[in-house]
Amino acid sequence: MTNLIEFTWPVRVYYEDTDAGGVVYYANYLKYLERARTEYLRALGFEQDQLKQKDGIIFAVHSLTIKYRKPAIFNDALTVTAEVLDQGNARLTFKQMITRKNDNTLICSADVTIACLDAIKFTPARIPARVQEVVRGS
Amino acid sequence: MTNLIEFTWPVRVYYEDTDAGGVVYYANYLKYLERARTEYLRALGFEQDQLKQKDGIIFAVHSLTIKYRKPAIFNDALTVTAEVLDQGNARLTFKQMITRKNDNTLICSADVTIACLDAIKFTPARIPARVQEVVRGS
Amino acid sequence: MTNLIEFTWPVRVYYEDTDAGGVVYYANYLKYLERARTEYLRALGFEQDQLKQKDGIIFAVHSLTIKYRKPAIFNDALTVTAEVLDQGNARLTFKQMITRKNDNTLICSADVTIACLDAIKFTPARIPARVQEVVRGS
Amino acid sequence: MTNLIEFTWPVRVYYEDTDAGGVVYYANYLKYLERARTEYLRALGFEQDQLKQKDGIIFAVHSLTIKYRKPAIFNDALTVTAEVLDQGNARLTFKQMITRKNDNTLICSADVTIACLDAIKFTPARIPARVQEVVRGS
Repeated sequence: MTNLIEFTWPVRVYYEDTDAGGVVYYANYLKYLERARTEYLRALGFEQDQLKQKDGIIFAVHSLTIKYRKPAIFNDALTVTAEVLDQGNARLTFKQMITRKNDNTLICSADVTIACLDAIKFTPARIPARVQEVVRGS
Repeated sequence: MTNLIEFTWPVRVYYEDTDAGGVVYYANYLKYLERARTEYLRALGFEQDQLKQKDGIIFAVHSLTIKYRKPAIFNDALTVTAEVLDQGNARLTFKQMITRKNDNTLICSADVTIACLDAIKFTPARIPARVQEVVRGS
Repeated sequence: MTNLIEFTWPVRVYYEDTDAGGVVYYANYLKYLERARTEYLRALGFEQDQLKQKDGIIFAVHSLTIKYRKPAIFNDALTVTAEVLDQGNARLTFKQMITRKNDNTLICSADVTIACLDAIKFTPARIPARVQEVVRGS
Repeated sequence: MTNLIEFTWPVRVYYEDTDAGGVVYYANYLKYLERARTEYLRALGFEQDQLKQKDGIIFAVHSLTIKYRKPAIFNDALTVTAEVLDQGNARLTFKQMITRKNDNTLICSADVTIACLDAIKFTPARIPARVQEVVRGS
């Protein structure tokens, strides 16, 4: 597994993402953040549908803090990062940033804590050992 | 059951619904249409989560045609109608309209065909008899 | 103006709000929170489209922290609160909670800081005096 | 300009796109369709923000018909096509299809008519001549 010091994922802003203020709607940045986390896991070799079927676990957002610095607008090409700051047996905390590609403006930054849950009972569950290892090595 | 000649449901336009054009994003009208269909069924006495659990069926959109007449904007108070135009054993076709309350402007009109599906296999299923009867009488 | 110790706004969960996990998608709770803040301002007599046109200001989310406690599901009837915790010249911090109506379960809680911005330049602006007064008295 | 017999755009299904039925929410396919139309115009050399600023026009959806054939699910890699079926002075009609990449399953097909509007007055406007020419040649 390559060492992913900082995983990045490109996102384009479409009309669907904006609001009448002319900027990206504040809730929609959370979609961008999740796309990057999903692609980070995929880059490490983990597909969430298989984790659900084979390991019986899902990842759910436990809590997050987000600071909106500058607005992104229609057509912006953005870069979303995903880096694991802290790793527990049943939780991962990501540090994530969204920047505009052409001028490197920081759009927003977030700390997002993800909980591993039993896919049926929605109770806390251990992150599968092989996921823990690969995330630790990333 | 009262005779629901024309079922209506109020919708308020929030920032979440708009786009950078300053108007409601075209896909979001489909959310309004579905809220009205859901509330129409609820008004007739049918909760979709119970239809799934007890009858093993779900309703899915099979096809639709929508004409966008005038744009709705932030803060508009809208009225959404839901009227069954055509009823089959496994399908319902709704005629729906969205108008602005204060000036009665027609925002969009749509024909939406709903299919009744087996909740597990996603194959066509008969609409439960009691639903068919109540819809016919509405 | 009546004293709004705790403003509440009802929200129904529709299919549009849920995801394949069977629960409300985490970003969509932010839509519910904003609906309640919009309705809180409306209840105090302030329409955001008029604040933009007449006062040249908009409100934008500056930062937020949200904790997801229990998932809401399709058809849930929720109650969203909006209470101003802290009030500055150019900022408001809301404490908000989302609970399920029928069993009073806390779904999530959030602190949301709103910045008043010049509607054209997107630079910080003073909250209009009459808004400040009414919010202080609420 | 290369001849784009059939323009295609890849889309990945994320949790944000799905609903509690376990499939992509019906309104969200319209987002995918629009992404493909936006990227089609970009591939032809036209950025919609520049068309708005320089030509004073925007494109808005006038009407559409969509048939949902098979559901797409979380993690699906989809292909969205955009092909101009009919071209008028102020309108374009697109034929669009969404298929699943790995097995070529047709997910849905749509005819979407786009109107060119004056960006300020929202009244019908002529599609700029150079856009008409390039679309005709594509």
